[in-house]
Amino acid sequence: MADAKTPDLSEIASILEGLEETIIQKLIDRVQFRLNASVYEPGRSGFENEPNSSLFYLRLRCQEEMDSLFGRFKVPEERPYHKKLPPARRSYTPGDSPLKIADYDLVNLTPRVIDSYLDLVPRICRNGYDGHYGSSAEHDVYAAQAIARRIHYGSFYVAESKYRADPKHYREMIEAEDRQGIMLALTRPEVELKIIRRVAEKVEKLQDTGSTRIRTPLPPEPVSEFYRDVIMPLTKEGEVLYLMNRRRDEMPLTR
Amino acid sequence: MADAKTPDLSEIASILEGLEETIIQKLIDRVQFRLNASVYEPGRSGFENEPNSSLFYLRLRCQEEMDSLFGRFKVPEERPYHKKLPPARRSYTPGDSPLKIADYDLVNLTPRVIDSYLDLVPRICRNGYDGHYGSSAEHDVYAAQAIARRIHYGSFYVAESKYRADPKHYREMIEAEDRQGIMLALTRPEVELKIIRRVAEKVEKLQDTGSTRIRTPLPPEPVSEFYRDVIMPLTKEGEVLYLMNRRRDEMPLTR
Repeated sequence: MADAKTPDLSEIASILEGLEETIIQKLIDRVQFRLNASVYEPGRSGFENEPNSSLFYLRLRCQEEMDSLFGRFKVPEERPYHKKLPPARRSYTPGDSPLKIADYDLVNLTPRVIDSYLDLVPRICRNGYDGHYGSSAEHDVYAAQAIARRIHYGSFYVAESKYRADPKHYREMIEAEDRQGIMLALTRPEVELKIIRRVAEKVEKLQDTGSTRIRTPLPPEPVSEFYRDVIMPLTKEGEVLYLMNRRRDEMPLTR
Repeated sequence: MADAKTPDLSEIASILEGLEETIIQKLIDRVQFRLNASVYEPGRSGFENEPNSSLFYLRLRCQEEMDSLFGRFKVPEERPYHKKLPPARRSYTPGDSPLKIADYDLVNLTPRVIDSYLDLVPRICRNGYDGHYGSSAEHDVYAAQAIARRIHYGSFYVAESKYRADPKHYREMIEAEDRQGIMLALTRPEVELKIIRRVAEKVEKLQDTGSTRIRTPLPPEPVSEFYRDVIMPLTKEGEVLYLMNRRRDEMPLTR
């Protein structure tokens, strides 16, 4: 089988920037509702026979079961939180992938994405209750999925692209299990700083609709901090994981 | 039971304006993918044993089944496309509603919303195929749900608010089954024109993110035309439907 072409780093950056806008939009949707803290408390979902789960986790499970039937998790950057999901009912022929990994779930950071997302919610939502529990959980799931997609997309494609730009160096570090060295090679502080700033600006821009502000505003700071403290570190961890699990045998040395 | 307070028209207008932004965002999400016309063709869903349905309608059914379990359709403005959905598994105590109608599904325009939405898709998406069939169908469902929510929210709450502002006049027209007279009383061309213009501006504003445009743009014209030709006429039809089915016995004459 021919190798799919090397993923282009500037194209990947564009896609990541698009996903950034999606994340911001999903968070704007979520903050239209109050925190509604009971959404996250086990046994308070309103569902019978679900004493151990919260409305949020029940919604996430149902969403992932549906998504699994439709084949979502065949896409590398779509990694599920739950294991044992029903198999896809849709036949699906994936295109050539440039990725070299035996199982996409070797890079599945979704459980940590969800934990971090749940820490973010009280920092962006107004306190209290408004009764919109179902809508809150629904938008939580969409936001968490968008964040996980961003992190996994970066993990897979940025790592593969950087590997191909300098395969000898990365292969040496992988063989030596030099995770720190890989992390260092992957880190570009000036790019990270640029992204963090851009995110804060975009949160403002995307809410400046030209008329009086009629929706509850999403504060920019917690979002750019979430990028700095969660999205970017987890993406790099995912890149290291990807590289440590990258298949050796199909290593292309040229494009 | 005490009457819930009269819905305030300016508050309703704010909520409708918020839903407008949601609709635009969902359409922006959708146009990131190509038209992918096979998504709408029966028998081409990739699902076995589903020769008569398209991927779009299968996704819509699964989404509505899940939403129904979570109690979405107990909310007036959330009207489903499908009948015979599973009952809610969540216990839910609705707050006082100002609405005076025996069954919210007496005002259910969702089938026509879906038809009109499917006519809009080829006008906003780039032609051709990109393989993202599942994502296209998913975002179609979210967009169509957001549009249906806007139309039904307006149908119920604008109509009730206008009725309460002039109950005698509306009651006479309802008794006389004077649908045309009701439609005329509900129509404010200058407000409609303002909304149509605002929608076009907002489509631009919401896509002006301060950096180079990296996402596929949503064209403003088809969206404002969709407001003019579909959303506003259907909302008014829904208002007439609501008023024709409004319960007489609980008619409040004062606030």
